[in-house]
Amino acid sequence: MDRISLSLGSGGKLMRDFLREGVLKHFGNEYLNKLADSTHIELSGKIGFTTDSFVITPLFFPGGDIGRLSVAGTVNDLVVSGIRPGFLSLSLIIEEGFPVNDLELIFRSIKKALQEAGVEIVTGDTKVVRKGEADGIYINTAGIGKVIAEPAELNNGDPIVITGSPGDHSVAIMVARGEFTFDGEDIKSDCQPLNDLLPLWGRGVKWMRDITRGGLATILCELAEAESVAVSIEESDVPFSPPVRAASEILGIDPFYLASEGKAVLVVAPKSADEILRYLKTLEYGKESRIIGKIGGIGKNGELVLKTISGGLRIMEPLTGELLPRIC
Amino acid sequence: MDRISLSLGSGGKLMRDFLREGVLKHFGNEYLNKLADSTHIELSGKIGFTTDSFVITPLFFPGGDIGRLSVAGTVNDLVVSGIRPGFLSLSLIIEEGFPVNDLELIFRSIKKALQEAGVEIVTGDTKVVRKGEADGIYINTAGIGKVIAEPAELNNGDPIVITGSPGDHSVAIMVARGEFTFDGEDIKSDCQPLNDLLPLWGRGVKWMRDITRGGLATILCELAEAESVAVSIEESDVPFSPPVRAASEILGIDPFYLASEGKAVLVVAPKSADEILRYLKTLEYGKESRIIGKIGGIGKNGELVLKTISGGLRIMEPLTGELLPRIC
Repeated sequence: MDRISLSLGSGGKLMRDFLREGVLKHFGNEYLNKLADSTHIELSGKIGFTTDSFVITPLFFPGGDIGRLSVAGTVNDLVVSGIRPGFLSLSLIIEEGFPVNDLELIFRSIKKALQEAGVEIVTGDTKVVRKGEADGIYINTAGIGKVIAEPAELNNGDPIVITGSPGDHSVAIMVARGEFTFDGEDIKSDCQPLNDLLPLWGRGVKWMRDITRGGLATILCELAEAESVAVSIEESDVPFSPPVRAASEILGIDPFYLASEGKAVLVVAPKSADEILRYLKTLEYGKESRIIGKIGGIGKNGELVLKTISGGLRIMEPLTGELLPRIC
Repeated sequence: MDRISLSLGSGGKLMRDFLREGVLKHFGNEYLNKLADSTHIELSGKIGFTTDSFVITPLFFPGGDIGRLSVAGTVNDLVVSGIRPGFLSLSLIIEEGFPVNDLELIFRSIKKALQEAGVEIVTGDTKVVRKGEADGIYINTAGIGKVIAEPAELNNGDPIVITGSPGDHSVAIMVARGEFTFDGEDIKSDCQPLNDLLPLWGRGVKWMRDITRGGLATILCELAEAESVAVSIEESDVPFSPPVRAASEILGIDPFYLASEGKAVLVVAPKSADEILRYLKTLEYGKESRIIGKIGGIGKNGELVLKTISGGLRIMEPLTGELLPRIC
């Protein structure tokens, strides 16, 4: 078999063979090996729960693929919510005729990301739809884990820290789609499980979000609105990478709305900021960590205000419309 | 807006508006209202976890729709695994141009099924893909809950109980697709959350499975193989409904491989069988509950043997190939 057939989704013998030979080979563990409808796991106390579906195109891109993204996206949603990721589900919707080799590459990538994130797949599902009823493969992961921190109250003056250059994922996808060419340095998606941020909970981090759809501006607008605080950031402090700057200039896109898949923005207690930055800079993907703004400032509660490089002030809105479909 | 647009999946303002006005209106609760990346919930002890994606066509069919199915499917996977369903995630992949009215109907149906099952949606995700990249809407749900029972050891002679006529879901879908017409009584999918089966755990039920893809035969083959037991059933005792019998005869389909979405098969302790049947018959969907076979009998360990109406013996195999794509 070199292409996925409809009968693989039948619930019958071919599906069991696929699960045994194709899936357990990569992801087998005491939970999944039972191939049961549900899994029993030990988790005490407060539990965190999240889900994401991934429809990214192309499936393989510089810096990652839909498999890596499916792990990182759900792991990161847990991490930024103060939850230690423990267990993932994996659900596949595959278009008939999908190359088995590509599925194998995706599975290998999932396995590598699981190892980086220290999590396991414990339950799953596979559906196959006819040709033309999906575009290759769509993946859903849900994740659960133990709650290790609750968000703390924010105060005026709390620094806002970014863990690195935002927007690299969006620009890597645009390049992979041929929508944009960039002759300078290579651009790669930052797609990355952020479980290394977990130790920061309890060390002065008050609030955390990964920068995904909507980009830095949308996320900080939502923070301002949800917490009824003013948020101000300095454009000159945001470490956009050269490819992101180039794409923004050439295509006339505002980089504050470009997505990452391995960057986070943190609100921290002022006295902890130095220690947190020291820790972040020890991480391979945190070398460019820096303070980009603070809670409070000139805006009204609920507003995000950007101080531009030219010295102007700009009230930022959440993203409206669609910048780039199927970015994740 | 009367059709779903790509910008709804952007992560921006339109998406927040959709979540606030379209989603929270139906499913709002203390967890979901935060519209956060993840949810914190209280669940102590051993946790059960499952997931399923739903790609059924048509989306609306006699007896249910993709929304009801998305709740029932995941609730039932938990129930049959000895898990009290607590919380669901809901993740949508919507094709651009999908009618907003249909989405509203699906949401109402999800809400009704949630109420029947006594569960809540606590986290979710929405993605929109371009026209032609999906077929209407695909839904993933994951579910978690507290483990209330572990499967018990099976012994030769343990009765096998079915909670009603198997295969109604498959035949209702065939009729809805126009693949088969039946002039007798109305055929409806049995799509139904089975949380009423939960009290049977601890009252003599040793093992439970809902009858889904692969049908009764595949599920019992898997039981025989997984537990290394012989399983024998009597064809004359299986309460196939008249439409299932008619469809099987006219289309030449084996009804033992047809799917249900609201029927279960149970292995029970012999001394508890009467009490369990009495309880099942009090349920609206359990009136036809009966014993259809037992663990042990003439077959070898790992085999499912059917005693046919004509008195012959047939060794049943798990479903091979695809009977009916996109049945769930």
